[in-house]
Amino acid sequence: MSSHALPSWSDCPARTAIIDFVSKVTNEDSPDYVPPGKRIATFDNDGTLWCEQPVQVQLFFLMDRVKHLAEKHPAIKDRQPFKAFLAHDMAMLQSLGRRALMELFFATHAGMTEDEFEVIAHRWFATARHPTFDRLFKQCTYQPQIELLHYLREHEFKTFIVSGGGIDLIRSFAEEAYGIPREQVIGSSAKLHFEMQSDHGVLMKVAELNSFDDRDVKPQNIGLHIGRRPILAFGNSDGDLAMLRYVKTGQGARLALLLHHDDAVREAAYGPEFKLSPLMEALDRAAEYGITVVSMKNDWRTVFGDA
Amino acid sequence: MSSHALPSWSDCPARTAIIDFVSKVTNEDSPDYVPPGKRIATFDNDGTLWCEQPVQVQLFFLMDRVKHLAEKHPAIKDRQPFKAFLAHDMAMLQSLGRRALMELFFATHAGMTEDEFEVIAHRWFATARHPTFDRLFKQCTYQPQIELLHYLREHEFKTFIVSGGGIDLIRSFAEEAYGIPREQVIGSSAKLHFEMQSDHGVLMKVAELNSFDDRDVKPQNIGLHIGRRPILAFGNSDGDLAMLRYVKTGQGARLALLLHHDDAVREAAYGPEFKLSPLMEALDRAAEYGITVVSMKNDWRTVFGDA
Repeated sequence: MSSHALPSWSDCPARTAIIDFVSKVTNEDSPDYVPPGKRIATFDNDGTLWCEQPVQVQLFFLMDRVKHLAEKHPAIKDRQPFKAFLAHDMAMLQSLGRRALMELFFATHAGMTEDEFEVIAHRWFATARHPTFDRLFKQCTYQPQIELLHYLREHEFKTFIVSGGGIDLIRSFAEEAYGIPREQVIGSSAKLHFEMQSDHGVLMKVAELNSFDDRDVKPQNIGLHIGRRPILAFGNSDGDLAMLRYVKTGQGARLALLLHHDDAVREAAYGPEFKLSPLMEALDRAAEYGITVVSMKNDWRTVFGDA
Repeated sequence: MSSHALPSWSDCPARTAIIDFVSKVTNEDSPDYVPPGKRIATFDNDGTLWCEQPVQVQLFFLMDRVKHLAEKHPAIKDRQPFKAFLAHDMAMLQSLGRRALMELFFATHAGMTEDEFEVIAHRWFATARHPTFDRLFKQCTYQPQIELLHYLREHEFKTFIVSGGGIDLIRSFAEEAYGIPREQVIGSSAKLHFEMQSDHGVLMKVAELNSFDDRDVKPQNIGLHIGRRPILAFGNSDGDLAMLRYVKTGQGARLALLLHHDDAVREAAYGPEFKLSPLMEALDRAAEYGITVVSMKNDWRTVFGDA
């Protein structure tokens, strides 16, 4: 039966670990049995469910929104941080600090209602294409992961995204791309403000950070949004390490997985081969932490599928 | 078929409104059809799904925890706000202000992990009884509402709680009492802090407010946690009014319901009959806002059922 599961996965130890794990937690006669309602699985998004190199998809969206803003308000073209961003001057942008990035985000993601943002995001995803992979951004998802999400749900897991990316942008495509409904997406967020506009109740996105959903904040937001410790988590960077360790150190059977980007031909290689890798601790200490490493190059028969 | 639905509801306009609403949003040929994934229903808890008079259940729990704390640390008995609370000196407590109530909450609800709190709450609900209704607190739920939640889920609604009460306390009984899983409970919350304790990742509840989930914060938290506008909401006080208006003023078919506590014999009467009613705006302007009022006295054949 399970020989046909996860067809885009090679016959590798990671695939075996996944299938064995799902088999034991769904077997009522197993000491590791977990009832369906407690089968929670959490996935990082950028670099875990879809590509994040050379540049995060959210930054392409941000660029398009800043360009749009500059058309409406040309004066911002001469103002930092807009000037540096529009000129792709990443060194200057970095020197302006995190505050500058926040200003770019708030100028383009706040000051509108949730409903208005949803229309903009949905429209963008309908046509925007990835410049190097030459496909729609919403098709830059990893086929083996789509299969894994589907496989888990077939076994009565509830699948969640826990991402450092903007919660509203992910929500606008997650259902179509991953089969994950909006209420099962956790991400970075701006504060919301409820107000009545001509007798119509709206949620305004305001220019104030609510949560930057990375590192320790990931398990914290899991506690807030889900309220139970997942039994499976999948990430790809040190930003996911707290979530992976939170999941892995719970009582009972647990599976923590880490995607290693070691496939320069089909996608990107940014593991320890690169000095500035963001992966060092998660990958270096995976064995010690009991984290199962997935090699994109060896363990996946295809990356993006044929979409 | 629907003549057998909601058996604890009288044949009243509110029951008809509910059944008509569910019928049209689930009928694919209706212009008001809503696909299953978008059938979100949100319920307040205190006074909507279970009793909140004469005293909120959470305060009974708080009292038991403060007593427990006083046994371990007798010195607090002479310190405010503990002294006033243990002496039921509500006038004094009120004069100490909201900060005092927060101190009581944090002293008993924080400084422990989520898992530790869950054990305490679960144990409490197993035996703690309501002093006036003489039944377990977890049985102080309204039978007509249990039926309504069940009826909605039968019609592929996803049911959520959106409560001013503490999120962890509600999560500890909501699944058993209402069939609502932990991840579909939104409530007031303390901040969480992720930490490794001897190689075991835990979420500590810390003595800092994360969210007081009342009034405008209810729709704001719906935006954060659910990310879509519900099509049905049920509340009982002005604390729910923002949520009811948010839901009711969305596009398409919407149903907003308000429970009127007008049943002094079977439960409590605290509508406009009482000068200090918390219900004034929601009830007074229900017709204007398009909110359907449910009379506990007239519309419910039973309140608590036979549990």
